[in-house]
Amino acid sequence: MDFELDRDRERRTGVPEAVFCTHKSAAQVNAILAAARAEGRRLLLTRLDAVAHAALAAADLDYDPLSGTAVLGPPVALAPAGVGIVAAGTSDLPVAREAARALAFSGIDAAIIADVGVAGLWRLTSRLDELRRFKVVIAVAGMEGALFSVLAGLIAAPVIAVPTSVGYGVAQGGMTALHAALASCAPGVVVVNIDNGFGAAAAAIKMLNAAAASMPGTPGNLSFGGIAR
Amino acid sequence: MDFELDRDRERRTGVPEAVFCTHKSAAQVNAILAAARAEGRRLLLTRLDAVAHAALAAADLDYDPLSGTAVLGPPVALAPAGVGIVAAGTSDLPVAREAARALAFSGIDAAIIADVGVAGLWRLTSRLDELRRFKVVIAVAGMEGALFSVLAGLIAAPVIAVPTSVGYGVAQGGMTALHAALASCAPGVVVVNIDNGFGAAAAAIKMLNAAAASMPGTPGNLSFGGIAR
Amino acid sequence: MDFELDRDRERRTGVPEAVFCTHKSAAQVNAILAAARAEGRRLLLTRLDAVAHAALAAADLDYDPLSGTAVLGPPVALAPAGVGIVAAGTSDLPVAREAARALAFSGIDAAIIADVGVAGLWRLTSRLDELRRFKVVIAVAGMEGALFSVLAGLIAAPVIAVPTSVGYGVAQGGMTALHAALASCAPGVVVVNIDNGFGAAAAAIKMLNAAAASMPGTPGNLSFGGIAR
Amino acid sequence: MDFELDRDRERRTGVPEAVFCTHKSAAQVNAILAAARAEGRRLLLTRLDAVAHAALAAADLDYDPLSGTAVLGPPVALAPAGVGIVAAGTSDLPVAREAARALAFSGIDAAIIADVGVAGLWRLTSRLDELRRFKVVIAVAGMEGALFSVLAGLIAAPVIAVPTSVGYGVAQGGMTALHAALASCAPGVVVVNIDNGFGAAAAAIKMLNAAAASMPGTPGNLSFGGIAR
Amino acid sequence: MDFELDRDRERRTGVPEAVFCTHKSAAQVNAILAAARAEGRRLLLTRLDAVAHAALAAADLDYDPLSGTAVLGPPVALAPAGVGIVAAGTSDLPVAREAARALAFSGIDAAIIADVGVAGLWRLTSRLDELRRFKVVIAVAGMEGALFSVLAGLIAAPVIAVPTSVGYGVAQGGMTALHAALASCAPGVVVVNIDNGFGAAAAAIKMLNAAAASMPGTPGNLSFGGIAR
Amino acid sequence: MDFELDRDRERRTGVPEAVFCTHKSAAQVNAILAAARAEGRRLLLTRLDAVAHAALAAADLDYDPLSGTAVLGPPVALAPAGVGIVAAGTSDLPVAREAARALAFSGIDAAIIADVGVAGLWRLTSRLDELRRFKVVIAVAGMEGALFSVLAGLIAAPVIAVPTSVGYGVAQGGMTALHAALASCAPGVVVVNIDNGFGAAAAAIKMLNAAAASMPGTPGNLSFGGIAR
Amino acid sequence: MDFELDRDRERRTGVPEAVFCTHKSAAQVNAILAAARAEGRRLLLTRLDAVAHAALAAADLDYDPLSGTAVLGPPVALAPAGVGIVAAGTSDLPVAREAARALAFSGIDAAIIADVGVAGLWRLTSRLDELRRFKVVIAVAGMEGALFSVLAGLIAAPVIAVPTSVGYGVAQGGMTALHAALASCAPGVVVVNIDNGFGAAAAAIKMLNAAAASMPGTPGNLSFGGIAR
Amino acid sequence: MDFELDRDRERRTGVPEAVFCTHKSAAQVNAILAAARAEGRRLLLTRLDAVAHAALAAADLDYDPLSGTAVLGPPVALAPAGVGIVAAGTSDLPVAREAARALAFSGIDAAIIADVGVAGLWRLTSRLDELRRFKVVIAVAGMEGALFSVLAGLIAAPVIAVPTSVGYGVAQGGMTALHAALASCAPGVVVVNIDNGFGAAAAAIKMLNAAAASMPGTPGNLSFGGIAR
Repeated sequence: MDFELDRDRERRTGVPEAVFCTHKSAAQVNAILAAARAEGRRLLLTRLDAVAHAALAAADLDYDPLSGTAVLGPPVALAPAGVGIVAAGTSDLPVAREAARALAFSGIDAAIIADVGVAGLWRLTSRLDELRRFKVVIAVAGMEGALFSVLAGLIAAPVIAVPTSVGYGVAQGGMTALHAALASCAPGVVVVNIDNGFGAAAAAIKMLNAAAASMPGTPGNLSFGGIAR
Repeated sequence: MDFELDRDRERRTGVPEAVFCTHKSAAQVNAILAAARAEGRRLLLTRLDAVAHAALAAADLDYDPLSGTAVLGPPVALAPAGVGIVAAGTSDLPVAREAARALAFSGIDAAIIADVGVAGLWRLTSRLDELRRFKVVIAVAGMEGALFSVLAGLIAAPVIAVPTSVGYGVAQGGMTALHAALASCAPGVVVVNIDNGFGAAAAAIKMLNAAAASMPGTPGNLSFGGIAR
Repeated sequence: MDFELDRDRERRTGVPEAVFCTHKSAAQVNAILAAARAEGRRLLLTRLDAVAHAALAAADLDYDPLSGTAVLGPPVALAPAGVGIVAAGTSDLPVAREAARALAFSGIDAAIIADVGVAGLWRLTSRLDELRRFKVVIAVAGMEGALFSVLAGLIAAPVIAVPTSVGYGVAQGGMTALHAALASCAPGVVVVNIDNGFGAAAAAIKMLNAAAASMPGTPGNLSFGGIAR
Repeated sequence: MDFELDRDRERRTGVPEAVFCTHKSAAQVNAILAAARAEGRRLLLTRLDAVAHAALAAADLDYDPLSGTAVLGPPVALAPAGVGIVAAGTSDLPVAREAARALAFSGIDAAIIADVGVAGLWRLTSRLDELRRFKVVIAVAGMEGALFSVLAGLIAAPVIAVPTSVGYGVAQGGMTALHAALASCAPGVVVVNIDNGFGAAAAAIKMLNAAAASMPGTPGNLSFGGIAR
Repeated sequence: MDFELDRDRERRTGVPEAVFCTHKSAAQVNAILAAARAEGRRLLLTRLDAVAHAALAAADLDYDPLSGTAVLGPPVALAPAGVGIVAAGTSDLPVAREAARALAFSGIDAAIIADVGVAGLWRLTSRLDELRRFKVVIAVAGMEGALFSVLAGLIAAPVIAVPTSVGYGVAQGGMTALHAALASCAPGVVVVNIDNGFGAAAAAIKMLNAAAASMPGTPGNLSFGGIAR
Repeated sequence: MDFELDRDRERRTGVPEAVFCTHKSAAQVNAILAAARAEGRRLLLTRLDAVAHAALAAADLDYDPLSGTAVLGPPVALAPAGVGIVAAGTSDLPVAREAARALAFSGIDAAIIADVGVAGLWRLTSRLDELRRFKVVIAVAGMEGALFSVLAGLIAAPVIAVPTSVGYGVAQGGMTALHAALASCAPGVVVVNIDNGFGAAAAAIKMLNAAAASMPGTPGNLSFGGIAR
Repeated sequence: MDFELDRDRERRTGVPEAVFCTHKSAAQVNAILAAARAEGRRLLLTRLDAVAHAALAAADLDYDPLSGTAVLGPPVALAPAGVGIVAAGTSDLPVAREAARALAFSGIDAAIIADVGVAGLWRLTSRLDELRRFKVVIAVAGMEGALFSVLAGLIAAPVIAVPTSVGYGVAQGGMTALHAALASCAPGVVVVNIDNGFGAAAAAIKMLNAAAASMPGTPGNLSFGGIAR
Repeated sequence: MDFELDRDRERRTGVPEAVFCTHKSAAQVNAILAAARAEGRRLLLTRLDAVAHAALAAADLDYDPLSGTAVLGPPVALAPAGVGIVAAGTSDLPVAREAARALAFSGIDAAIIADVGVAGLWRLTSRLDELRRFKVVIAVAGMEGALFSVLAGLIAAPVIAVPTSVGYGVAQGGMTALHAALASCAPGVVVVNIDNGFGAAAAAIKMLNAAAASMPGTPGNLSFGGIAR
């Protein structure tokens, strides 16, 4: 067998293993799905485009074409956990939704606040009260990524920046947004790879777990309340 | 006056403003120090090398040459807060210490665990129990930055990766370590700019504040317990 | 003789020739100065650092060490012309001042509004009325260059972005700020080379000249009102 | 709703909002069009290729396949405003035409002067009188972008350089033309992103508005004469 | 004739010539195959995707679609030679298999150990005894390439790192894994081009030949025992 | 203590730990030396330039200024082991010598064959007999690195390419030589980081160890004959 | 009309204008062809792939699919002129043939010497007598481009290096071959853009013209003997 | 001895060997000089800055500080040979002069035409008659390198472009000028490495030799008339 499920990962790191599908053949993904079904494990698949999804012929997947994510197994109950997802433009929604789906896989209901790019600053500042209520904010932006700095200068929650590949010319591929997030003049912005909505969700879960761990009576308990196992 | 102190920043974002000294003249830094003294404000200075420090003629600074940081104002009481700093090699210590000094400025006593690079994996695994007790871990590594992935695969706490400019050839400047952190196969690693120990500390404080905010009875209270005001 | 003054340039393009000193020897700059003195021409020198200036032994220069600019010849009367210079941080002041000195060489009195970086957004928005009165705005910022987008989304004047080399890690050298300016989500931002305060001033003069040219009765007259001849 | 129209943008910045279609699904663009129709707003769409246009099934769009632009709403009367568009080669025409279409959306009739690349310098110099009559010139060139420097050395109007992705090898993607524009030895060239005809048009409109604002009796009036509202 | 077979290469360098098919037309590959058939030579083809293979209409090839390799001529007997191939993830298998097929072409039977990425370190350490028995190890990994350093710090055999193009964002194209391999803190890692499974196999054969050459009684004999001629 | 000697490394990997001095302070290196002296361990220091060496005040070091290497502890007996070092030009000698010194630290006497760049091909081909007698060849070249391909096409021994930072313009920093080595049309070239003479020596030792391990009667014995312990 | 033929170019520069088709629509190329037919001008088209050629429906073109070139107008008589074209591998033949076709358009009959890559040095050295008879040599190579240095060190004729995009990994796109050509240790190599066979032919023609101009009795006569007008 | 003079190079390639001094120690250069003196050979040294020259204590060198070149041995008679050197600005003179000195070493007297950058096009066009009389033109320019295209579009002689590292921001290091030369829309421009005046001279000599070789009665004679032996 060409793969080895890391069944222990969630207990060890607080985040379940997901299957990144871009470079895998349909045969490989099908084999992984079969193994998970045999064990009765839930599974999250990312970067599964419509063509690849069709090639799987896996009717038991909950597939979302916008984000290219699929879930194997029963849904879990969702509960809010203080995570907000902010997307600069409508073009950034696929990545924002990958983050939301990954959070939902772990039982976290996260709202997406879309189209608040800084070219029209009022769109962001008019929702500041809402934004300030989140414990963790995932910010999703491409092009020049100015949203990251502006947002992090306005709120106290940790800002997880997800640069996206939205843009053209010097922005193409997301490097400009990535570098802008890393070079932000607003301290405390943390960054994940370009288009990595799943990674941002994983980081948010870890931060929530750290918060849970800090409460009296829960030392060592690193699994977040609402997360399905 | 050529500068405008952002006095409200800590209340707004949970992290106090610091003065980045690299591109500033001695006259400019002295003016900022004078303004802070006049207001009785504590101040953290970063990237202040020995020559620049000597040029300031500011005897009231607590200066640390290894990290290039200086503190204006009285020390605050330190308390542990669950933040660990892991440095791959002795060459990474200046950056690790910048993070420790920034945390100490906010009253957080953070331990540095040094020289645990993955070329000798036993150095890391032998300290795993200690590492697993932290709520937030700042990982500091240059060269190929393999430490980030290995560490994040072993512990549940959020890992804030600080790539350093330690290395030569393709590693020079820190881009390889930075890209390795961003492309990590271990989900949930979050990254700050190369050599940005201060930014990692700021992110850690925000995560602790988020944790504090999640406790019953403290909604909206974004200032971390031990942080000096 | 190894150089050829472009005496006609101001008439042809609206902007006088300046001498970029970085790669020139003291002998070369002295020869150019001597030729200008012989013709009674005013001359602007840029990128003349303190050591290079001292090597010239040219007591008749009006030298400004912060911007590294020097002027040969008598000062001209200054008049406001609707140009504002906005600098994100104190580290960006040398570049902002190069722009101001180049404008002053052509008789334009431009105000510098400093330390309005977006990490503390209130610093910018509190001065919005002042900013909206300018006909042309030169914006100077390094690091992630978020200022360009925020500013251009708030005012109607053309925004000439001057990315600076202020920053470290991925920002070092100014490429991140440059790309952020070019990829801005706020349409109409125009960009000059990194640290090119002189070029921004030249562009501002050309825009003012275009404005002057559009007034009835001044067809073909490309010299701006207050510009020295 | 996943988007938020910035209805106030033209009043605030002088330039109307446009819809960049590259990363948007047909469903997203259709929703935006429907919202605009419901409000009776005119709308400019850019980067809409023929396939994407066909997928919209929006018969009320004025679509131009060469530039990939579409206009929703009634045409406005066109008037010349002193803007010239110069294209180095026939391959640069799609970008030049995007600029022309964006200007026409705002009521400005701009001429395109094509195929004046510097390999045959006479093609440019023979049209110098015509070029010198423009108040603002948009220059569009790929490959090595030598046109920008030559043109800016010959005329007094502001030159807005639009580097294009035309070329191969080291020119591919437009970075060489972009860097050539930024590093031009002719001062005052201002630059927008690669292939960004719309951005150049927006900048030109802002410059014209600045000119209008400078006339006695029109302080604060930032809307250009012929621009449709 | 447009090609010139290097028939002497194996005797001269210990490694037979292979045909890299990516940039060759079907006509060119067919001509090379015909020449080899005419001489009765065995031949290894690499980078032959399914479409290109179909276009050849060469029924006598032993084709493997996963690795895109094909063999002309009779199979040779396989014997183990102490070469192990370690692949970080299932997505790296095409490259790992190209190495295995190239080794098999020379009579070496190499095992592939798959899915031992460092995010789940136990997967690697649990197979350490097996790994330590190899004389030469080929390590295949994309993304951040942390496997190279961890592995080389644990075993004594030479580690030939093959970075792969598996990944996205900053990892895309394999440059991050390549640089990580080159900048490894574990000394003695040697590196071949991205996705170059064939080159790694060639290097392994040369190392085995060097070993053979060091045995008493075989000075100058550079052909490896089991290699078909 | 800020460092942790990896005393077990040589037994585990066949290569002793060395101290890379570039980013370390004199205090740090002195502490490491003191620890080694206390244990009676031999130690190799690399990248120790003359100024740093002088700052150590360590009279018991065998220091070589050309390669910037120093050895602590008694010399070991040298024996030839079939390793040749080939340097393209005299400018590449510091790196070639770093490799030779690292091999000598482990008891291997390696010859340096210098100034055989391909611009004068006869210099290389006239020494072909000598070159073909080596079991492992370390090739050191900067600029365009053509030596790697030519050499690997002529001999059967594994070629370990060490690109150097020798050159200017597009060659500056060694990236061109590095890429040339990786993209070599001669299969089986393996590559280490730019200027990494020590890494090449470590790889050569591992290859020799692999050879030794392949001899009957020495299974599991990974230490090379002449290597000091 | 969107284009302007540079009819005078050949007289002015010695090289006729060619039409680069990559970024042009079929309508644009057809218009250019029609204009040339109307004037009775011969025309060379480059970068015209099979699909684009088919879309032209221009039966009067002499089309060569391998090089993607087409000629409008009657053939000219060919004569040898001392130009040799050397291609490293069969994959480099499309570019080599673009050069040959461009030379043939100007009446020069140039031989292609293929598959002489340096991995099998004997293939090159065995043809040295033939190579030394050329007055100008065009060398075409991708991957690491070692051919350029080796060839230029062996012959006295000017070597025009044409790096090609043949390769993968670090070689992809041709930048490694380009940089190797520019950084060659063999002085006097001159370089054109990646895949630019036409440019190499143009340079060769100019060199031959310079040679012709140097003969007594032909001052100012810059047209090469056999070149069609 | 660590070096091997390529005494045969001039006969073989038409260009004598030169000593590139940047990476060589004073001891190494002195040894090369001593060997040349012992053989009575003339020698050209390049990239020898004033400090390195002073360290040589070689009073018999003809040293030129502007170009950093030195000549060992008696001067040769100079004669014009139709080579012109065109420099865009005074900052480009060191490179232009390196070319002139290298030509003079081979007996060729080449004129330098300086300060003809395209920002003032008249400076170039006013000297067109002079430029058109050259058989070979070396063009030296930094920044955006527009000179290469303009010049090559105006004259028939081969243009050898030498991009220089003159500039700042995106131009810094010369990559923009290099890419502009390679991507020139004027066919037939050939390019050497950044700041490589010596390489341009070598190429010019090879072109002149090719010209000489084409004259009746001189087949095989590849040495240029005035070149010292």
